Amino acid sequence: MFMWSGAIKYIRLEEGLKAIDLHVKQLLPVEEVEIPDAYGRFLAEDLISKIDVPPCDIAHFDGYALRSSDVEQASLTNPVKLRVKARLYPSTKEPVSLEPGEAAYVATGSPMPMGADGVLPVEASVVKGEYLEVRHRVRPGDHVIKAGNDMRQGEVVLRRGHRLRGQDLALLALMGLARVKVFSRPRVCIIPVGDELTDEGNALRPGEVPCSHALMISSFVLRDGGAPLRFARVPDDLSLISEAVIKAANLSDLVLTIGGASRGEKDLVATAISRIDGAKIVFHGIMTRPGRQTGFAVINGKPLVMLPGLVQSTIVGYQLIARRVMFKLMGLEVDDLTIKAKMACDLRLPQPRGFKRVVFVKLDRDGNSYRAWPLIGESALLSIPVRAHGYVLFDEGLDHVEKDSMVDVYLLY
Amino acid sequence: MFMWSGAIKYIRLEEGLKAIDLHVKQLLPVEEVEIPDAYGRFLAEDLISKIDVPPCDIAHFDGYALRSSDVEQASLTNPVKLRVKARLYPSTKEPVSLEPGEAAYVATGSPMPMGADGVLPVEASVVKGEYLEVRHRVRPGDHVIKAGNDMRQGEVVLRRGHRLRGQDLALLALMGLARVKVFSRPRVCIIPVGDELTDEGNALRPGEVPCSHALMISSFVLRDGGAPLRFARVPDDLSLISEAVIKAANLSDLVLTIGGASRGEKDLVATAISRIDGAKIVFHGIMTRPGRQTGFAVINGKPLVMLPGLVQSTIVGYQLIARRVMFKLMGLEVDDLTIKAKMACDLRLPQPRGFKRVVFVKLDRDGNSYRAWPLIGESALLSIPVRAHGYVLFDEGLDHVEKDSMVDVYLLY
Repeated sequence: MFMWSGAIKYIRLEEGLKAIDLHVKQLLPVEEVEIPDAYGRFLAEDLISKIDVPPCDIAHFDGYALRSSDVEQASLTNPVKLRVKARLYPSTKEPVSLEPGEAAYVATGSPMPMGADGVLPVEASVVKGEYLEVRHRVRPGDHVIKAGNDMRQGEVVLRRGHRLRGQDLALLALMGLARVKVFSRPRVCIIPVGDELTDEGNALRPGEVPCSHALMISSFVLRDGGAPLRFARVPDDLSLISEAVIKAANLSDLVLTIGGASRGEKDLVATAISRIDGAKIVFHGIMTRPGRQTGFAVINGKPLVMLPGLVQSTIVGYQLIARRVMFKLMGLEVDDLTIKAKMACDLRLPQPRGFKRVVFVKLDRDGNSYRAWPLIGESALLSIPVRAHGYVLFDEGLDHVEKDSMVDVYLLY
Repeated sequence: MFMWSGAIKYIRLEEGLKAIDLHVKQLLPVEEVEIPDAYGRFLAEDLISKIDVPPCDIAHFDGYALRSSDVEQASLTNPVKLRVKARLYPSTKEPVSLEPGEAAYVATGSPMPMGADGVLPVEASVVKGEYLEVRHRVRPGDHVIKAGNDMRQGEVVLRRGHRLRGQDLALLALMGLARVKVFSRPRVCIIPVGDELTDEGNALRPGEVPCSHALMISSFVLRDGGAPLRFARVPDDLSLISEAVIKAANLSDLVLTIGGASRGEKDLVATAISRIDGAKIVFHGIMTRPGRQTGFAVINGKPLVMLPGLVQSTIVGYQLIARRVMFKLMGLEVDDLTIKAKMACDLRLPQPRGFKRVVFVKLDRDGNSYRAWPLIGESALLSIPVRAHGYVLFDEGLDHVEKDSMVDVYLLY
């Protein structure tokens, strides 16, 4: 059993992330779901097309399919007459073939008749009785989508780890698939810790604080594709915390505790974890502000993140550490798109300068670019992330950021 | 009854949006939901705090609360002794008050004792028996969060129309609320039209195309906070289309048809709508490419968007028109954050130059900035939006975009 010394040792964020990569090895199980249920899920395998899409050449315009060699000499003064042999639609099942001198009406999306290699758009077509008069040259391939142009048989169309969007589901359907392999949703147990906690929604009395942070983290887990499982709040009691953690580790893929992660006399989470057989505290304390009390442990192979209780540090611990673990359970890296913005004013970064500093920012538009307004205040203040669109992660060593510097804003949606 | 002439008249996108604003007047009903169920919902009223948060002054550090006037002269050589009268935690229910010469232990988040106005951090505290030796001056307000510092009673903390995120739910809970007023999810009926359509998930035969677009649009509606209702596919038949539209308009807040919106002989959606009593086609045809066949109608007050069937135009019609209607049903404007990127190469924009052109782009990183790679191909190709992170909307009149020009990328997630 690993005994945690209790000494405060803050490690660099990068070291923390490396430790996570080392300790989180086992991937989530894979499940097969029906395509309509796959929205927002993460692909568990590279997706290779088993067919050409479209499966045959199709018309990309309403018009007349023809053999381009028939109309090489066609012009306004020298129209070429072709017999209209058939009418084709996307729903046409029987194959049609064109001999020289023949054409066929095709609606957009129709299979091209055999022998035809170009389409004369309907706007340029003159039809007289059963004959089409062609007054323009049509080149091979004009207004035709070739078989396999959208996707080729054997082509990797989506990569493992890709989070499925609407257009991706459409693609799976178009490939004729009924089901797709995705990673199971990570089951994330959230345990709020603290004597003062009450269920939310009650009138507040002195000495009571609603479990608001668990609700917030639960929404973040949902947003990130996980299945949150909110546990009953646990008081500041060593045995009760240990019990809840053991139970949660059995039920879930990732345990998140909230609160009790600091160094005060009622901060019992780390000690409670260190007393569990098979538990190892990998780190407790990272060099970020807020969020420095964040910890990471492994309980018989199950990862656990200790999130601090002051709300801005809870958010930072989740965004920088807990999400990383969730993604690692699928063999993935977190890779957020960021919004470029200009700092709206000078900003003196909070101490200690050896830490990475997270600053919440509110965005507005300034002509064609975004401006980021820093929102500064004690890390217990929830109104700051509420007013923020996102946050900027400033590197260690920086003291000061000048007005109009470009920063990368991570969205907090 | 409005009779639609059938003549092709493309209107400018801006005109189309104005027409939507004019015709979509009625807001969605408001419902009250429990806070944990409010994630992703849109606030139906400005939210005003009924209480101060925190409700009283609280300690922001583990340490000793004291009266700053007692320790004005305190220094290393002149320590001041205070009697430790009580220990306070966030869960402490009974009020405590300090007389001159007294201090109280406070854990982070504890209510400040009456009379106390500053906190000496535990790291700086020397305790001997029941006495605290203060060797540093503490100023009024040191390490104290004042009542109302996070939110003041009467303050508007969130605006009507705001989409609720995790941190916002936490705030509602912290305000002691159990329920919150949100707009009902817009019920969006999606009707795929076409003889060739089959249910997805079957092996594909000639003349059959899976209902992939409806699945895609359904996911987009979910993403945007709506409740999609997928209707059975409808063949290219005037009466059946009219019937389906009437039924859908009765069941939903917004009807979306997919396909049959072009000008071919089997494009019957506009005609079918124009035959419905009380239906008015407001516009059919917008000057965007792809997406120019998009239409907008009102059926006895219910909005309907005709989405074209070529997949890139389906997407553009949804993003530019249908979403606008969905948001308008809540009295809101679409206001997407965009990613700034540099064009990765020169790009000749497709004709006609009098139209706005939507170009799908794939992003990658180039040092500290994003590069946008245009993905060009016929609007029937689904692989293009699948490979894209988003799209750029280029203004009419532009012919050519130079490498390294900055563009705004709308994400297609």
